[in-house]
Amino acid sequence: MSLRPRRPGPTVRTRVRELRPDGERRREDRLATEEPMEIRVAWPGAPARRAWVTMRTPGHDFELAAGWLRHEGVTGGVGTAGTTGATGVASVAYCTDETLTPEQDLNVVTVTLDGPPAVDLGHRHGGHASGSSACGVCGKDSVAAVLDVPRGERWAGAVPSDDVVRTLPDRLRDHQQVFARTGGVHAAAAADADGTLLVVREDVGRHNAVDKVTGARVLAGEPPAVACLVVSGRAGFELVQKAVAAGTGSLVAVGAPTSLSVRLAEEAGLVLYGFTSASRCVRYA
Amino acid sequence: MSLRPRRPGPTVRTRVRELRPDGERRREDRLATEEPMEIRVAWPGAPARRAWVTMRTPGHDFELAAGWLRHEGVTGGVGTAGTTGATGVASVAYCTDETLTPEQDLNVVTVTLDGPPAVDLGHRHGGHASGSSACGVCGKDSVAAVLDVPRGERWAGAVPSDDVVRTLPDRLRDHQQVFARTGGVHAAAAADADGTLLVVREDVGRHNAVDKVTGARVLAGEPPAVACLVVSGRAGFELVQKAVAAGTGSLVAVGAPTSLSVRLAEEAGLVLYGFTSASRCVRYA
Repeated sequence: MSLRPRRPGPTVRTRVRELRPDGERRREDRLATEEPMEIRVAWPGAPARRAWVTMRTPGHDFELAAGWLRHEGVTGGVGTAGTTGATGVASVAYCTDETLTPEQDLNVVTVTLDGPPAVDLGHRHGGHASGSSACGVCGKDSVAAVLDVPRGERWAGAVPSDDVVRTLPDRLRDHQQVFARTGGVHAAAAADADGTLLVVREDVGRHNAVDKVTGARVLAGEPPAVACLVVSGRAGFELVQKAVAAGTGSLVAVGAPTSLSVRLAEEAGLVLYGFTSASRCVRYA
Repeated sequence: MSLRPRRPGPTVRTRVRELRPDGERRREDRLATEEPMEIRVAWPGAPARRAWVTMRTPGHDFELAAGWLRHEGVTGGVGTAGTTGATGVASVAYCTDETLTPEQDLNVVTVTLDGPPAVDLGHRHGGHASGSSACGVCGKDSVAAVLDVPRGERWAGAVPSDDVVRTLPDRLRDHQQVFARTGGVHAAAAADADGTLLVVREDVGRHNAVDKVTGARVLAGEPPAVACLVVSGRAGFELVQKAVAAGTGSLVAVGAPTSLSVRLAEEAGLVLYGFTSASRCVRYA
């Protein structure tokens, strides 16, 4: 029996050369850790099957898995077709499969559901057709599927005022511990209407940080819908999709939104802010 | 017969409210366009099948498809297993399938290869098992596959000196037309050893911008390996993977690298710079 590897931390040390016009300096630097993680899904009577592989910063892995499944509409929530998905998470564990190499050991997470998933695990991704799919069929399925966003039960309370919104990036930055050390990660936070941050998560992948925030609430038995989701980067379609799936009241981004994210936010009734700082914010939807 | 839709541009106009502490201003803003694009692959005797769906900024779509396939090791290049993939691109076209809706019409691109692909189209993604895969089998396949990076023929010439490297972010910014209008897109460029930018591409997705740069060279009949690849954001694993697949000599990022990107760059002999600006750059590998 081999020893289990030490759990990788969110940062690693490395030696670098900093090169300025006036000379070179060798020093130690910290890098954000990035490793692949596989999410497997099982339910009573069904063996674990692969659902997704993502590059992520280790830490809060169970939250990442639970939040990703919620945002995909696999658990909880209300589908666009009006189907109520009452499937819940029964347990989350690192896979202890003996065929895994030490490197893979803490990079495979199995989520066991309390029943069959509410949606086909593969329906929104169109990663690869398993066999040959004739032109026109798979395409229609896949491009449409990307835009077929799961809708979570909507936040019914107040959302932060414009004045509170402008305070959120600074509050988020105060919590960005890994960013402070590496400059290389994104952050996301759930916030109350008064701007209080409820949970903050960091990751090299902006989507992962949002998955971890929702997963933290799901695993704590709390509803994923919050007054506000704050993100340190831009608000692309996939981030808006996750906010809509969680039922978030408003999404506040430090960076720019895109055409499709504004369109989805308008359709879903999500209040969307971009270019947010202490001195201004821009309201798009 | 319906009219073909107008090709979407890289930006769209929208009305926004800018909210400052001293008041509100309604104005027009420009958003980076983001739409899904499906890449299909066909070869003699094989019908088109879906290979990938990505969110992207419309424009240079054929380059995006050709570059993505090259970076995946599907065309050209030398695989890590030592297999020479001599498969080339015979043609690239928008899919004219009559079952597509107008919205999908310019969002599906079919690449016809001159022979069967060098690798299994699905091997690196592990998006979804097509059926049930027992625990331990699919996982080993997928996490390992993510790290099994295709290697392109390496750039054999000189790479930019440290002094030239520090000039590259400003040169790139001078070409970032969509960013200047929207603040919402990433840019990537191929550069010579003297810092001359050969091709610059922008996209809401940082990976897409890199795919477009390599695709531009592939479709022009030029080798994808260049002295230097410059990117406006961070240097995550997937960007380093693409640089290695293209055979790039050095990768210069404005932002931070990650642990895995430094490890891969070291293994592959790719010179990697992060935190690059006119006043400094940090050499990681």
